Amino acid sequence: MSKTIDFYFDFSSPYGYLAATRIDSLAAKYGREVKWHALLLGAIFKVTGGAPLPSLPLKGAYALHDMERSARFHGIAYRRPAQFPIPTQLAARAMLWVEQEQGQARAAEFAKAVYRAYFADGADIVDPTTIAALAAGMGLDAAALIEGVNSASIKEKLRAENDAALARGVFGSPFIIADDEPFWGFDRFDQLEAFLKNGTI
Amino acid sequence: MSKTIDFYFDFSSPYGYLAATRIDSLAAKYGREVKWHALLLGAIFKVTGGAPLPSLPLKGAYALHDMERSARFHGIAYRRPAQFPIPTQLAARAMLWVEQEQGQARAAEFAKAVYRAYFADGADIVDPTTIAALAAGMGLDAAALIEGVNSASIKEKLRAENDAALARGVFGSPFIIADDEPFWGFDRFDQLEAFLKNGTI
Repeated sequence: MSKTIDFYFDFSSPYGYLAATRIDSLAAKYGREVKWHALLLGAIFKVTGGAPLPSLPLKGAYALHDMERSARFHGIAYRRPAQFPIPTQLAARAMLWVEQEQGQARAAEFAKAVYRAYFADGADIVDPTTIAALAAGMGLDAAALIEGVNSASIKEKLRAENDAALARGVFGSPFIIADDEPFWGFDRFDQLEAFLKNGTI
Repeated sequence: MSKTIDFYFDFSSPYGYLAATRIDSLAAKYGREVKWHALLLGAIFKVTGGAPLPSLPLKGAYALHDMERSARFHGIAYRRPAQFPIPTQLAARAMLWVEQEQGQARAAEFAKAVYRAYFADGADIVDPTTIAALAAGMGLDAAALIEGVNSASIKEKLRAENDAALARGVFGSPFIIADDEPFWGFDRFDQLEAFLKNGTI
C-alpha cells in the first residue's frame, strides 16, 4: 500500500478548488502524502464526450448555484470568476515547471496559490503576468518560469500527465486515486476518508 | 414556506433508490412531508442532452462501481440489476394510478416497494406481472391497476408530471426541491438537511 494518494484536478474546476483546500489535511490525518496532478479536462472530454458543466441546459444553471452553495456549506472562500471556464494550459505547465525545479511540495503550494487567486481573489490566471506574480510571491524566478512553460519539454510533460491520467480512468475534476480506489468529486470526500481510515469501503 | 418538499426520481436511477430509502425520515425529522414524483429521465435527457451514466466512456464504469460502494457506505441493500437502465413508464404510471386511487402516502409506499424489488431483490419491474404482484402485495386491485396504467388519462398525467418537472429545472434523479431550493443527488442530502434545519444555506 503506497503512502501517496493521487489528486487530479483542472485549474478551471470549482469543485477541484474546493477539494484542493482540504485534500492535504485529510491525507495527513491518515499518514498519507498527496501527489498533485494538474490536468486539462478539455483534452479528456474529447475522449470521454464530457462537457464543461456551465454549458449544459438546466444542469449548467444548477451547477453555478451549487458551486457557490457548496463553498458556503463547507466554509470555503469562493467568488464566481468573471471568465469561466477558462483554458488552463499555462497554469498547469507552470505547476509542472515548479515541480521540476523545486519538487512536489512547492508545486502543491503553487497550485493552491493559483486556485485561490482564480476562485477567491478574482485574478485572471490565463494572463502570464498573474502566473508570474504568483510565482514571484513564492520567491520563484518568474522570468525562468515563463521561459519554462514555453519549453517543449514542459509541454510534452503535460501531455504525458494527461495521457497517464486517462489511462488510469480519470475523467473529471477533482479525482482522487488511493490504492487503486477511485473517487470522483469533492462530494466523495466522506467515502475517501472512510477508505483511508479503514483500508476498505 | 410549504411543509411539503418535492422528491423527483426515475425508477431506473440507483442514486434515486438510495435517496428513496432516506427522504421520508429526513423530511419527517424537520416536520416536512414529501411529495413523490416519478419521472422519465429519458424524456428529460432529450431536452437537456443528458445520457444514462453507464453509457458514458470511463464515467460509466466508475458509476457502476460508485453505486455499489455508495450503497455499502450508507448501509443500504443493493444488488446491481441484470438489466440496467430500463424503461420505467410502466412503474411510473402505476405509481400515479396508486396515487389517484389511494393518495400520496400509498403512492410513496408503492414506489418504495418497486425500488426495493428492482435494486435489492433482482425483480424485473418492466414486466407487468411484477408490478401487479407488488400492488397485490399491498392489498391493491392488481387487475384494476393494469387497466389503469394503460388508460389515456394516466399516460397524460405522466407526461404532464414530466413537463412540470422540466419547467422547474429538474434534470436528474434524485432531485429534491424544498422551498424553491434545488438539490441534485443523494450526495447533497447533507446540504438538504442543513437547509431544512436552518431555512438557509
